[in-house]
Amino acid sequence: MKAVTFQAPGEVRVEERPEPVLEHADEAIIRIEASGVCGSDLHIYHGRVPVEPGTVIGHEYVGTVLEVGEGVTRVVPGDRVLGCFHVACGSCTACLRGDYHRCERGRTFGHGSTLGSLPGTQADQALVPFADIVLRKVPEGMSAETALFAGDVMGTGYHAVAHAGMKEGDTVAVLGLGPVGLCAVQAAVAGGASHVFAVDSVEQRLDLAKRFGATPVHLTEDNAKAEVRGASGGRGADVVVEAVGHPGAVEAAIGLARNAGTVSGIGVLVGRSEMNLGLAWLKGLDLRLGLANVIAHVDRVLALLDSGKLDPRPLVTHHMKLEDAVEAYEIYDRREALKIILTP
Amino acid sequence: MKAVTFQAPGEVRVEERPEPVLEHADEAIIRIEASGVCGSDLHIYHGRVPVEPGTVIGHEYVGTVLEVGEGVTRVVPGDRVLGCFHVACGSCTACLRGDYHRCERGRTFGHGSTLGSLPGTQADQALVPFADIVLRKVPEGMSAETALFAGDVMGTGYHAVAHAGMKEGDTVAVLGLGPVGLCAVQAAVAGGASHVFAVDSVEQRLDLAKRFGATPVHLTEDNAKAEVRGASGGRGADVVVEAVGHPGAVEAAIGLARNAGTVSGIGVLVGRSEMNLGLAWLKGLDLRLGLANVIAHVDRVLALLDSGKLDPRPLVTHHMKLEDAVEAYEIYDRREALKIILTP
Amino acid sequence: MKAVTFQAPGEVRVEERPEPVLEHADEAIIRIEASGVCGSDLHIYHGRVPVEPGTVIGHEYVGTVLEVGEGVTRVVPGDRVLGCFHVACGSCTACLRGDYHRCERGRTFGHGSTLGSLPGTQADQALVPFADIVLRKVPEGMSAETALFAGDVMGTGYHAVAHAGMKEGDTVAVLGLGPVGLCAVQAAVAGGASHVFAVDSVEQRLDLAKRFGATPVHLTEDNAKAEVRGASGGRGADVVVEAVGHPGAVEAAIGLARNAGTVSGIGVLVGRSEMNLGLAWLKGLDLRLGLANVIAHVDRVLALLDSGKLDPRPLVTHHMKLEDAVEAYEIYDRREALKIILTP
Amino acid sequence: MKAVTFQAPGEVRVEERPEPVLEHADEAIIRIEASGVCGSDLHIYHGRVPVEPGTVIGHEYVGTVLEVGEGVTRVVPGDRVLGCFHVACGSCTACLRGDYHRCERGRTFGHGSTLGSLPGTQADQALVPFADIVLRKVPEGMSAETALFAGDVMGTGYHAVAHAGMKEGDTVAVLGLGPVGLCAVQAAVAGGASHVFAVDSVEQRLDLAKRFGATPVHLTEDNAKAEVRGASGGRGADVVVEAVGHPGAVEAAIGLARNAGTVSGIGVLVGRSEMNLGLAWLKGLDLRLGLANVIAHVDRVLALLDSGKLDPRPLVTHHMKLEDAVEAYEIYDRREALKIILTP
Repeated sequence: MKAVTFQAPGEVRVEERPEPVLEHADEAIIRIEASGVCGSDLHIYHGRVPVEPGTVIGHEYVGTVLEVGEGVTRVVPGDRVLGCFHVACGSCTACLRGDYHRCERGRTFGHGSTLGSLPGTQADQALVPFADIVLRKVPEGMSAETALFAGDVMGTGYHAVAHAGMKEGDTVAVLGLGPVGLCAVQAAVAGGASHVFAVDSVEQRLDLAKRFGATPVHLTEDNAKAEVRGASGGRGADVVVEAVGHPGAVEAAIGLARNAGTVSGIGVLVGRSEMNLGLAWLKGLDLRLGLANVIAHVDRVLALLDSGKLDPRPLVTHHMKLEDAVEAYEIYDRREALKIILTP
Repeated sequence: MKAVTFQAPGEVRVEERPEPVLEHADEAIIRIEASGVCGSDLHIYHGRVPVEPGTVIGHEYVGTVLEVGEGVTRVVPGDRVLGCFHVACGSCTACLRGDYHRCERGRTFGHGSTLGSLPGTQADQALVPFADIVLRKVPEGMSAETALFAGDVMGTGYHAVAHAGMKEGDTVAVLGLGPVGLCAVQAAVAGGASHVFAVDSVEQRLDLAKRFGATPVHLTEDNAKAEVRGASGGRGADVVVEAVGHPGAVEAAIGLARNAGTVSGIGVLVGRSEMNLGLAWLKGLDLRLGLANVIAHVDRVLALLDSGKLDPRPLVTHHMKLEDAVEAYEIYDRREALKIILTP
Repeated sequence: MKAVTFQAPGEVRVEERPEPVLEHADEAIIRIEASGVCGSDLHIYHGRVPVEPGTVIGHEYVGTVLEVGEGVTRVVPGDRVLGCFHVACGSCTACLRGDYHRCERGRTFGHGSTLGSLPGTQADQALVPFADIVLRKVPEGMSAETALFAGDVMGTGYHAVAHAGMKEGDTVAVLGLGPVGLCAVQAAVAGGASHVFAVDSVEQRLDLAKRFGATPVHLTEDNAKAEVRGASGGRGADVVVEAVGHPGAVEAAIGLARNAGTVSGIGVLVGRSEMNLGLAWLKGLDLRLGLANVIAHVDRVLALLDSGKLDPRPLVTHHMKLEDAVEAYEIYDRREALKIILTP
Repeated sequence: MKAVTFQAPGEVRVEERPEPVLEHADEAIIRIEASGVCGSDLHIYHGRVPVEPGTVIGHEYVGTVLEVGEGVTRVVPGDRVLGCFHVACGSCTACLRGDYHRCERGRTFGHGSTLGSLPGTQADQALVPFADIVLRKVPEGMSAETALFAGDVMGTGYHAVAHAGMKEGDTVAVLGLGPVGLCAVQAAVAGGASHVFAVDSVEQRLDLAKRFGATPVHLTEDNAKAEVRGASGGRGADVVVEAVGHPGAVEAAIGLARNAGTVSGIGVLVGRSEMNLGLAWLKGLDLRLGLANVIAHVDRVLALLDSGKLDPRPLVTHHMKLEDAVEAYEIYDRREALKIILTP
């Protein structure tokens, strides 16, 4: 089968690979109908997230079940399914607590040996461990490009506001309007935030956020703090989503939050950083950090996609063939795309 | 001043009463701009909720502050305000826990001596104890008829779903489409329910619910259980709002809820009733009963009204003069109105 | 192997049965070291819970793993383990939400075909499906009779207070001091309730509750309502555990709860009953009903047993041989025992 | 009356001051029976927290009500009361949300103009605004030295574990065993933590923590991470309380927490600091920072003190006369005392 592989920083290839084979009772094999190129793939492409040369990459996917192990009960061959970007066992201490994103046997598709050596989904076929937990049937009539958001980017946007405990009527600010930030904007709007302020410096992204129901705030031209305070009786946002993954953005989030508010840090933070934790302490903030728990949310996110309350289609800027993945990565690298969908 | 008074079952009058006078530091006096006639008023009108003859009734109101006690800091004379249907002290054990609706010094406007002998708001003026807690400024540009919902019916609809812990993406059913049920429908839709089933037997109400984004289900013609299950993989609703106030409706709610789901019983239940608690036990349900905690929600509800995410205007079927209150009650009694707004 | 079987109401036998055989990748077979006789077994014994004649009964157990399927990773042959009274798949919609007690593929040991035809554990060996989820290693040095409480009675007592959201410092009342009620008393005391009132009419049980740190209240001789109010400034209990399983006890629980308090209904309720739901509504109560979610709690309960903060040993009144099960059931039926431990 | 005043860094005096006079309806005046010297007082004493020379200091107190404003209903002259270290209005947006510690009209006793110019309680008398919210009756038979902990240090220790959402059976680590850390140890033990690891480098404090039921861990001699992991299956603590107020301690707390665990940062953090937020992100932690919300907890803390489940008496190392306050501050400054009680 064909598969997109990482070779070296800045270099991917479309290569022939053997088709996957079932090895455990909980697994499924699916024929990929569509996969996405995501910001995380770009980290790999740039070498910032190191994976072994030859690793099949990709972790967003919709497809058809070809074969299942004897322990799989929720999907059968022929089912059209979407999957989550990582797998979880459902039976370790973390999973039993509901923390599927911290599964002790968790593995992430297409991220090399540091995340479990699970081959990626930018390929003709993929092997899915713990299929009952990871896969869901695509609701009838839903397009592949909509469905594949449920298990990754939209699930992450949903998590960003749900994990923060956003309540209907809250004032929300979202910092960073990449695909995750824009999905967080949609989740906040759909969840009944009375105000959603969307902060970035790219006009096209601000326009999308506005179209999704947010108030766009230009990072440098507008005064985010003044706008948020103006809408909240001077208090600040109940929830601030940090979707950049940069200490400066966390610090800005701390500044925008109201006293005893919540900062939802969904953007990847790495290593040490200097920060005004004193201000967070003074305000009595709750900083909720880390990767999204998409498995915990996927049923609700799918229901929202199915009802049209969440709609990621405006984020899909490019449709390309899997065999043109080299060009797709180049386009993504030049920041010309928000989401590229690859089909066989 | 003019005031609407209860005289006997089926008989109200518009009478002259002395204007209220400040007696405590926490009080405000407001000149009423608009008051509403509500289903609770009808209970009084029918004599089911007994109040003393001569009691000034009414508990929904918008007005302008005329005077405040020395301890009032959040509103000043001249402010246009709305208020909650009951008052709470903010300092008793219940209030400090956030249970303003169970305030140990709580009183309800226009409900006679059993609820604290607090004169009602269907009058030219009203005295508001604990004004800082009970009153809020009307957002600029908001009509009186929209604002007065915040402190009563819409606050109750919001409570019905918020107190049930509804999550974005949940499936919700609302039983009973009086004003409270219809507001619960709006709150569920605005809060991101993926499906809202609205159950009643009155076509006009079903039509309104549909217009608000719900799936209308005719109580006798349709099969509510089948419809709810069809939308939830056979499981039932995550949250069922019982807005009728009848044991049969609670029982129906138990039947519609999914395993480990929640029934939010906002409809008034009185006395003893027979019920299938065995089924509720088997399903592992959470039954959350009682009056709404509108003071806890009023700021968020106001923000939602201000942003247009909640909009009670379609519920307002009649605008009448305060002096025509006798006729207003007759219309309401004939169930020709959903909400009547009285103005001086 | 030897196994205790139900034959007819009032009749059990110790019979020879074939040893279990692994059939699925997620299963384990254990050699039983000790099993318990529980109040639920008595329901079967009396015929109130119907099971097929010949059904192997029992659902509390500690043992040693003999064999595991290829998908089992948390236990290996030779491990000394305890298990939960029911099994859950970990991957259905209910399980992924954390509602293991409502698992869509759930089965209960020793309860016949209505609960999944899973042979019971009062036997020499038992087959345990979903072993990674259901079994836990017994902490070093813990006796079998302590450990087997974790997956059933103590897990249920823990659930009764945890699911009610009891907070450290709360006032708690427990109605019904059978083994579950007494375990709820322990869980409430260990969890930092400032007052625990334990209500029953059996002196021996009241004495045990007192020894566990509760204030004993005789159902008919004392005035439970007066005592609870006296300790709570006249307000009532924050949490009331109903561990009887009778409408009258639910009603008493409603009477003891404070405004906006919680009634945790852990006692089995069956079918229709008449009840003062009007009072529950007036008080704004939260009624949380149903079976305990012991799988969700088992790790914490084990840690508490291991640290000695929970200690069920005073509940163990009898140690008997498995082959004497007929006599054990007779003793239990005469209410002479709180907990009987059967060993091979 | 006599009052302890700050003069300059390292210099306090006992001076004559006029007795307080009621000015608002919500106020009470109390005659102080006992006040405490606290770590926060030391920050003032050292000039790290700047207050105006002449400021009356102190914020822990028990006394007798002398006089109340007309709006005060929960206490009357003659009542023996304790109070919280800060006051809150009960009616602003923050208070109505339950965030009394972030009250928009909040003031702290004895902290000068930056915290509301509210004279301190190391004096013969004190004026208490918002008395219904701030004061509580001392339970009969409770000593002043026990009661005064409820509104400050023990309330803070309770908050540290309650605000972190600690569950019965959790593993907890407490970093820093000053009075607040030791109270957090007590609150964790009383609330049913299965393991409490108490980390410090002072033997006397480690001994006290052990006496309170914790496992003492010497900061430099023992390996905190290894001990915590050993008790938690290698996972780390569910809740880590940071009671030092130093970036290094926050970082250590991040290291001790399990994946998806909570760090409760109760120690004062000031300004910018460098920190491994990347590790917190990787673990998916929840960092809950800031001052304790003692008003929200005071009733439960009092009930726990009254039942003996919390007992701060071992922390009281010195009893001195108010007129000897100069010496008391010198002793405290030399770290010879954990808690000094001053009486008239």
